This record gives sequence, structure tokens and C-alpha cells, in this order.
Amino acid sequence: MKLATLKDGSRDGRLIVVTRDLTQYADAGEVARTLQAALDDWPATAPKLTRLAESLEAGSVPSEPFDPRHVHSPLPRAYQWADGSAYVNHVELVRRARNADMPTTFWTDPLMYQGGSDSFLAPCDPILAADERFGIDMEGEVAVIVDDVAMGATSRQAREAIRLVMLVNDVSLRGLIPDELAKGFGFFQSKPSSSFSPVAVTVDELGDAWKDGKVHLPLLVSMNGIPFGRANAGRDMTFDFGQLVSHAAKTRPLAAGSIIGSGTVSNKRDGGPGKPIVEGGDGYSCIAEIRMIETIEHGGPKTPYLHFGDRVRIEMKDKHGASIFGAIEQTVRRYAGDERQ
Amino acid sequence: MKLATLKDGSRDGRLIVVTRDLTQYADAGEVARTLQAALDDWPATAPKLTRLAESLEAGSVPSEPFDPRHVHSPLPRAYQWADGSAYVNHVELVRRARNADMPTTFWTDPLMYQGGSDSFLAPCDPILAADERFGIDMEGEVAVIVDDVAMGATSRQAREAIRLVMLVNDVSLRGLIPDELAKGFGFFQSKPSSSFSPVAVTVDELGDAWKDGKVHLPLLVSMNGIPFGRANAGRDMTFDFGQLVSHAAKTRPLAAGSIIGSGTVSNKRDGGPGKPIVEGGDGYSCIAEIRMIETIEHGGPKTPYLHFGDRVRIEMKDKHGASIFGAIEQTVRRYAGDERQ
Repeated sequence: MKLATLKDGSRDGRLIVVTRDLTQYADAGEVARTLQAALDDWPATAPKLTRLAESLEAGSVPSEPFDPRHVHSPLPRAYQWADGSAYVNHVELVRRARNADMPTTFWTDPLMYQGGSDSFLAPCDPILAADERFGIDMEGEVAVIVDDVAMGATSRQAREAIRLVMLVNDVSLRGLIPDELAKGFGFFQSKPSSSFSPVAVTVDELGDAWKDGKVHLPLLVSMNGIPFGRANAGRDMTFDFGQLVSHAAKTRPLAAGSIIGSGTVSNKRDGGPGKPIVEGGDGYSCIAEIRMIETIEHGGPKTPYLHFGDRVRIEMKDKHGASIFGAIEQTVRRYAGDERQ
Repeated sequence: MKLATLKDGSRDGRLIVVTRDLTQYADAGEVARTLQAALDDWPATAPKLTRLAESLEAGSVPSEPFDPRHVHSPLPRAYQWADGSAYVNHVELVRRARNADMPTTFWTDPLMYQGGSDSFLAPCDPILAADERFGIDMEGEVAVIVDDVAMGATSRQAREAIRLVMLVNDVSLRGLIPDELAKGFGFFQSKPSSSFSPVAVTVDELGDAWKDGKVHLPLLVSMNGIPFGRANAGRDMTFDFGQLVSHAAKTRPLAAGSIIGSGTVSNKRDGGPGKPIVEGGDGYSCIAEIRMIETIEHGGPKTPYLHFGDRVRIEMKDKHGASIFGAIEQTVRRYAGDERQ
């Protein structure tokens, strides 16, 4: 089934079930008011939501047209957002671009950072930043939402706790990263609010594309309508979602509704870095990656980070060409003071 | 007023108002079912909770005896836990112990890490760890809970958004920190679940002790009943809570209920490191600090980290000797598999 969260003026929105083709929705309030409430009691709510989704597909419950501009991220705020960096190819490029060796343990011990989860952006909300010089970048990723995971869960146990899959735009402020990481405490100001796809789906919706804890489909990233990336999320993913969730749960339990991300999807090409789509490659899921390749090849980056007014679109299609999660589609805008209050 | 969260079998518990002397409580369910719900609509709920607290003090509402063993942390799970490192003295010692210089920017730009907030420990819950060799340590800190804070809020605006104050035990696994920080993405496995004091209080409860965005009282830390630290949280705090909250909000808004911590409370003595209480000093709020001083003075640490069975107590008393927040009192226990499911 496919779940989404309708904006209704409240902080957590209202849970809805969406048709497979993303055209209609039915209110799920009788099962659970919010997605977090559904996740808090998944064994009880999931069967009811599944029945509602079946009735919706059959046209036997009242429905409304689905519009991704009217939804929040599936969890408008969450108790946890932890983002891995499972495409180690990408990490290796980051290091090469600054002439640093990558420790070999990076192939066996996942990188993961704790992200802010209190105020996500909706999938069609603008990306607000005070200054273009922050180096505004998108990062196209896949993420899972888990049920309760016990401390010390194995990768297999962790994979069984995966309840929903969605896409992420892990917005990054590249200009703030070097100084922040140099302080030694990880990302904070360099990782502003992320946004997630309009719809989160159960793994069965992915069919054959969900295998070994990975989503084996291209992640379609475009900028201002021009294709920028189509890297396959199932390729070159060194750690599957089971391993990432298990890593997160090594020393503490994870609560239902925790979101674990894959990190920027990135594919190698002939054992080396990828190529732009215009050159016949599969492109990139973030601007930083092409800039790193430009730095390695030409001594410096050429592609600029995002400007105010630029549009980013992140989507994934099934083998028949149908959008699975709906599209994250955001425009970068200048932040000119508090627009919330 | 003083607020707490009664364990009732649900994930978020039940909001209660506690008497100033921490002996009685009244159910606050008619105002808001949970503390997060109260914070979500603070302008409406705070006046009602204040009236309830006054009625409770006057004995004009039904009440029950308050037992800190029956409460969760005030927010059993939160949408954000971000911990600063405002006692730069402590940071300087960490660096000196490993012969590293501290960048001078550390005196002007706060260190802050994003912590896990999905599964806090209750104030009297055991600290569970799989292995003593993880280097289990307490960190006694002060934390604030804020209302909504706009992106880019100034320190003054941020300070005005502080709604509640509480204590924290920011449990740390020292043995896992060096390898984790070397990866460059900050803390994750080295920071298991934190616990918070039984009660969170509005700033007016602190009277004169709340000044300039700091709590000017000693933080009492003991181990196995022996006083270990009594550093004054108002001294040597380089960044006040307004500055810490403003730092957190630089590139994204903070949602109501976000928790911002001070970092380990640490006092200098005569311009140098502190002394143990038995030597007439004010001691330490974490074991790592005395180990760093031992390393600087003797070439290596002497005081061991916590063993299974060790008890930690963290408390703060007002100038009349009365406990303000109740005590965090935890025993370290071996984690022998999932005890939740």
C-alpha cells in the first residue's frame, strides 16, 4: 500500500491511503489519525490500512483526487532521522577530490550521521536558504521507516523491521561542511531540513525491485527540467538497509517511526566515477559528485551549486514507467526571515 | 511550575503537574495528554497548567504521592535532541590530554552534535550496555526545551523561546568515540540513549539562579553514593542557552519540544583544570574529565569508567537545599538481549 500525510493545518497532518497510480486517496483517520500513530501500533493498524487500500483500488470507499502539492513529507516530523552513506563509491570520490586516502574500514563499517528530524520540508515546499554562498545542494536518496528495533539487532532482524520505503532530498549546504566537520562533531548547520517523497510505500509495492534490502531501480534526478542523474539505487550500495538499520541499533534501540537513509545514490562506471547523462552516463544524485569529478579531472569544479530559482526533481519509476513514490519537486528560494510565524 | 510524565504503558506517558517540593502530583490530562501536546500549543496550555499547579500547591485538586521511579523522562521521545559543548574548559582539556591544540574559534563558535531522540531512558531506568569495554561514562548536563524557533533567530529571540529546563545524563561510550569521530560524521553508536531528570521546570522556578540564559547552581554528581562533582553550571559556560539555541537554528527552524543541551558542566580552578572533591575541589560531571587530568598529570588515566552495578546520581538543589528537578539515579547493567519485546 501507499501512504501519505495530508496537510490540514496541524503539525502532523492527516494519514491518507493513496491509489497505486497516485491519482486518488481515501482518508485513513478511522484507522489512525497520523502516520506516526499507525507506526506506533503497526501490527494492529497495518491490516486495516491494507484493507482500506484494497477498497480504494476497488473504488468501494469515498475518494478524492491526490495532489502531491497538498501533502507533507509522510512523517512531517519524526523521532529519528539517521542517514547512512552506503554508496561508498561516492565517499571514495569525496576523498580523492581532496587528495585524502579513504580508510579501508569504510567498506565494512557504515558511515552514518544523526540528522535533524523535527521540521522536515514537504515534497513540494521551497528549499529556503539565507545565502547562495552556503553552497546549496540536493542529495537524492532512498530511505526506510522502521518499526521498533531492539538494541543489538542483527542485519536480518533489522531488515524484517522495515515497514515503509520512500525517497529523500537530503538538502546539504556544501559551503558549511568543511568547517563544520573540522570541528569533529559531525554535521549540524550544514544539514538543513530534508524533504521526503509525497508517498511512502510498503516493500511489497516494489515487487522484484526490492531485493536483498535494496531498491533495484534508477533514481531519477533532474535540475530545471534537465535530467541530471539516473543512478540505480540497487547498484554499488555497499551496505543494504538491514545493515544500515543494524548499525544504527548497535548501542540503543530504535523507536517505531525512525527513518534510516541510504546516503546519496551513486554508481561507478567501468570501475571509475560516473559520467554525465549527456555523455551517455547515468549522471549523479547530487551536484557535489560532479564537482568532485571535475576537480579530479580538471583541477577544479565547474558545475555551480543551486541558485535561487533553481528547481530540483527526484523521482523513481517502476519497470512500466509509473512513478512509485510521486516526485519531490522543490524550488530554491531566498530565506528572508521567518515565514512561519 | 514543574511538569513530569507518568509511565502509563503508552509510548508518551501522561502529563502531570508536580508540587514545588516534589511530593505530590496532579493529572494534567484535561489540559494536554502529553508534554509534547502541551508544547505543541504552549500559549494555550501554559496558562491552564500554571493554574493547575497553583491549585495543586493550594491542595484544592486531587493529588497523588510523586515517585520519580514511576516517571519517564519529561519527553520520553522527542523530535530533536541537540547537545552543545558550552563549557569550553572541558573541550580544552580533551584536546590537551591528546596533545592537540584547540582552534581559537571554539571560543566563539559553539560545538554541537545532533543526538538520538527516539528512545530516551527514564530517570531511574538502568543504563544498559552490552560490554563494559565500551567505556561507559555519565555526563551531567543542563538542558532546555524550546518552543518553535524561527530559522535565523538571534540569541535573544532564542532565549525567549525557552520554555522548560531540566537535567540530563548524556550517557557516552568513551571507548567507541575515537574510532567514530575519526570517520568524520560525528557521534552515533558512542552516544546511546540519554536520560533526563524526573521533572522539567519553567524558568521562573529557578528564581535568581536563572540569569543570562544560564543556571547558576552547582550540579551534584555522585557515583555509588560518593560525591564526584559539584561544578557550578553558571560558571565557565562560554555560550549561554540563547546562543546554543540560536546556533541550532541558524539554517533551519526548530520545532516546539526540541531539547538543547549544555554539554558536560565543567569548572576551571585557578585558571587550570578542576580538582577532585576529596581534595577540596568541585570535582567533575563525567569520568572522562578526571581521566584527562590524570593523563596530563601522570601520563595515563587512573579512574576507571563505569562498571556493571555502578550507580550514578545527578541532581541540582536550590539555595535552600531543596531538589529542583528530582534526581537522575541510574545503575549500569549488562544488556543481555532485547528486554522490551
